[in-house]
Amino acid sequence: MKRFIVIGHKALTSGDFSLNDMPGSAGRMDVLCRCVNSSLFLSHDLRRDVECYLVLLGEPNPPKTILFSGERVRYLNPDERSAGSLIKKALGITCSDEFTESTKGVYIRRGGLERLLSEFQVALLDEHGVDIRTTDELPEAYLLSDHMNFSEGEEDLIRDVQKVSVGPKILHADHTITIMLNEMDRREKPSEL
Amino acid sequence: MKRFIVIGHKALTSGDFSLNDMPGSAGRMDVLCRCVNSSLFLSHDLRRDVECYLVLLGEPNPPKTILFSGERVRYLNPDERSAGSLIKKALGITCSDEFTESTKGVYIRRGGLERLLSEFQVALLDEHGVDIRTTDELPEAYLLSDHMNFSEGEEDLIRDVQKVSVGPKILHADHTITIMLNEMDRREKPSEL
Repeated sequence: MKRFIVIGHKALTSGDFSLNDMPGSAGRMDVLCRCVNSSLFLSHDLRRDVECYLVLLGEPNPPKTILFSGERVRYLNPDERSAGSLIKKALGITCSDEFTESTKGVYIRRGGLERLLSEFQVALLDEHGVDIRTTDELPEAYLLSDHMNFSEGEEDLIRDVQKVSVGPKILHADHTITIMLNEMDRREKPSEL
Repeated sequence: MKRFIVIGHKALTSGDFSLNDMPGSAGRMDVLCRCVNSSLFLSHDLRRDVECYLVLLGEPNPPKTILFSGERVRYLNPDERSAGSLIKKALGITCSDEFTESTKGVYIRRGGLERLLSEFQVALLDEHGVDIRTTDELPEAYLLSDHMNFSEGEEDLIRDVQKVSVGPKILHADHTITIMLNEMDRREKPSEL
């Protein structure tokens, strides 16, 4: 399973935001929606071997983690509003310490990065990391930030994780995911033939 | 200059669509908006050496071509609604055979693919093409389709163009642009050092 974890530093943790203002009052929820798209969509198909974890750290009840499962998700279209609508529904249900399904293939729980780091061997997508094209074995889980840098607390948590880079320019999180998956696609291809 | 040309086979050619329903009544305008994003955005910066051409073929007055210039564009944010809003404004002005600026760095004219093919040396991004990683010299202009295949008429126009591929899976147009630009970034890097 391939996993992408994206931190939404200001992303609201209640569902009462407007789909018409995701970059503003919803705390750059648009960034997270685009990461769901780039993690899960192929042309006319879904990437069933990918999970996308969104860590929401905005008001009023952070942290919460929303999981989109490429294997199980339904009702998801590629546009930002579609992912935003499923995030709204997830934030609308009662949230416990374990994942609860809000719509098919979308789950929510309390908790954030620290717990995810205890569950998966995570690599950081970082411009100072080792080039993914020269990495012998690609990690299975990747951490990215939204439009903001990691906080000091987060930096402490990830100080020792492996760092990998997708190229010479600093890119948006969703673009980085697309390039990462392309590298994985290319490495898988021989075994599919 | 790097150029991406995206065909929107059903994308409306009048500005009276709702930003709340770009995948539906606007004719998959969301696809074109995402291509603007992937063509022009870097993290906290714009790709000033990229132009993104959207060819709109939907009702009521096709074909029209909208150009987003990375060097000149203003008022563009990464979310789909932002690009959609600038497309609406472009479709709202009187359109002639030459590009007219609708908002800073966004231009519209009558005409479509045939004219663009006469202006630029275009390569087709196609899963059966030559791998971009093994192409000696990368083309400067690339043609992509939205969620639909090229029409027969379009196929006739592009029968002899160079075909390049970004990898083993068939991807959305915006994801393909992201991977293409990453390959270009990597090749440019040495000369920047």
